Amino acid sequence: MAASTPLLKDELDIVIPTIRNLDFLEMWRPFFQPYHLIIVQDGDPSKTIRVPEGFDYELYNRNDINKILGPKASCISFKDSACRCFGYMVSKKKYIFTIDDDCFVAKNPSGKDINALEQHIKNLLSPSSPFFFNTLYDPYREGADFVRGYPFSLREGVSTAVSHGLWLNIPDYDAPTQLVKPRERNTRYVDAVMTIPKGTLFPMCGMNLAFDRELIGPAMYFGLMGDGQPIGRYDDMWAGWCIKVICDHLGLGVKTGLPYIWHSKASNPFVNLKKEYKGIYWQEELIPFFQSVILPKDCTTVQKCYIEISKQVKAKLGKVDDYFIKLADAMVTWIEAWDELNPLGTTGRLLNGTTK
Amino acid sequence: MAASTPLLKDELDIVIPTIRNLDFLEMWRPFFQPYHLIIVQDGDPSKTIRVPEGFDYELYNRNDINKILGPKASCISFKDSACRCFGYMVSKKKYIFTIDDDCFVAKNPSGKDINALEQHIKNLLSPSSPFFFNTLYDPYREGADFVRGYPFSLREGVSTAVSHGLWLNIPDYDAPTQLVKPRERNTRYVDAVMTIPKGTLFPMCGMNLAFDRELIGPAMYFGLMGDGQPIGRYDDMWAGWCIKVICDHLGLGVKTGLPYIWHSKASNPFVNLKKEYKGIYWQEELIPFFQSVILPKDCTTVQKCYIEISKQVKAKLGKVDDYFIKLADAMVTWIEAWDELNPLGTTGRLLNGTTK
Repeated sequence: MAASTPLLKDELDIVIPTIRNLDFLEMWRPFFQPYHLIIVQDGDPSKTIRVPEGFDYELYNRNDINKILGPKASCISFKDSACRCFGYMVSKKKYIFTIDDDCFVAKNPSGKDINALEQHIKNLLSPSSPFFFNTLYDPYREGADFVRGYPFSLREGVSTAVSHGLWLNIPDYDAPTQLVKPRERNTRYVDAVMTIPKGTLFPMCGMNLAFDRELIGPAMYFGLMGDGQPIGRYDDMWAGWCIKVICDHLGLGVKTGLPYIWHSKASNPFVNLKKEYKGIYWQEELIPFFQSVILPKDCTTVQKCYIEISKQVKAKLGKVDDYFIKLADAMVTWIEAWDELNPLGTTGRLLNGTTK
Repeated sequence: MAASTPLLKDELDIVIPTIRNLDFLEMWRPFFQPYHLIIVQDGDPSKTIRVPEGFDYELYNRNDINKILGPKASCISFKDSACRCFGYMVSKKKYIFTIDDDCFVAKNPSGKDINALEQHIKNLLSPSSPFFFNTLYDPYREGADFVRGYPFSLREGVSTAVSHGLWLNIPDYDAPTQLVKPRERNTRYVDAVMTIPKGTLFPMCGMNLAFDRELIGPAMYFGLMGDGQPIGRYDDMWAGWCIKVICDHLGLGVKTGLPYIWHSKASNPFVNLKKEYKGIYWQEELIPFFQSVILPKDCTTVQKCYIEISKQVKAKLGKVDDYFIKLADAMVTWIEAWDELNPLGTTGRLLNGTTK
């Protein structure tokens, strides 16, 4: 029997931000090798990153980013994994999967290796149900359905824009929780995928994340973090709040749950605390802000929604700290850069005839 | 080693609606025997319901209900398991667990019997987190916590009013789904409890349900179903929409997930279709109605909220069908009856000094 073609082989890029040799790919070889990788090298561009043989990839370091984006490169973070979003921008594919280089293949309760990418693709290719909660979780999954009392008019669902995967072993905790619970490990395998309801914000982690670039790509900006910036470790959170508000406005779905990856090392909680501490108190204003963002009806594209959010960020969060004025400007720069690299729609499909 | 006292032994009643001998209790004996049962006998009151020996119970048939409530007994459904809510009203305890008599003890993936009641109690005694989604599910559970990006100001949580448990084997499907998927069984054990976010409605099933009577009891009215009514099988749904809107307004939590029970027999889909069909199309108006209910600030108690909802039901759903005018009146009668039987607060605690 011939091996089946991997799902979406020519329609998905894997984006990996890194500062080291990508030996972690060895473990992922059976699942990732058919796909194209976009590696975003952070830190010193003169360093050579080793990629295991047999992978098809393109690699961008800071010099490449500066060359491609010119002055607009200012919107791409340096010395922070937030730089990964550059990879989203240069991709020409419909789908993106992004993963950290300290994430390995997890096992399901039967001891079988989990093909995380395959599960993300399933999540993205099946609808979401953001308008009403289904108590048996993902109604589109085999062996499940909508339960009694679920309105029939809502059962068609909506397109899924984002699939947020989870982590076994080291949970994604903030520095205070890491400090208080240094030995806590996530050992609970929850066999569920669910839609995050409309109107509900969530903490989106960038470690194990997939999305539809055509539907939501221009909002997947990971902000200004790291070198020269007052915070870190809020890059994916920022993106998560923005994409959720926009998905809710545009009627798109965001799922969380399966697949799990094995997160191998906890980052240093003291270093993390330094990166996070401003975020920890700013966040108390950010959440009410995002909960109250209203996008006008004429915001019919992701770009329009995103520019509108940037304006509201400047007007309302600029009072919290000047950083948000800088961030609001960077959000606009990001969209300009995105549109420059993706002149006809988000995937360049019309430009190229087909995806590359 | 002495056996430990069962949790909340003197503060919880188990409410069971039935038309048959309660042999199903044999399987539950190790878990239920320490608790007091309130059995609501539906149908022919001259029939004798056999209760296995050793259980502490009180039993009410239709004659008892009529005697206790007088003309207000009209708000209690007949020939429908919706009659169970009479048990909520006559209880003097702080907590209620209600279960159907075709539900048996399920096993967890390790093959161990699940003490459903104990899990419900854990759910009710730990806080809920309705204002922001936690991707690792219940943050109060052992081995879990709030993830990075969860606002610290929200980590105290709110009191939990309702714990909604699930079903292995026969899933709680509506008649059309039963007809289309006659052989579907729920075999997926999802090891999670989660808070249903604020602003999100869900289909609450009454088969395996626990709640805090003090916090939400007066809203747990299962409506007018069965004998003389145009619909059935929407009793728990109706209660679920009402309690969710009120919990959201009062800042209380609703959880769903564990515990599972084993649901043994599917009800007849043809009979169900007859009961449901009006509900299926009315529901398309009910959901938008409940999604848009706004309770004024002076609705500071469950009773006030409930009366306000009854007014809005009459004003807005009365146009859908005369049934809702009758239902709105019954909602008021229910509250009057509740207050009559629970003159000082919902549990009669002040009246009795202690719970009985």
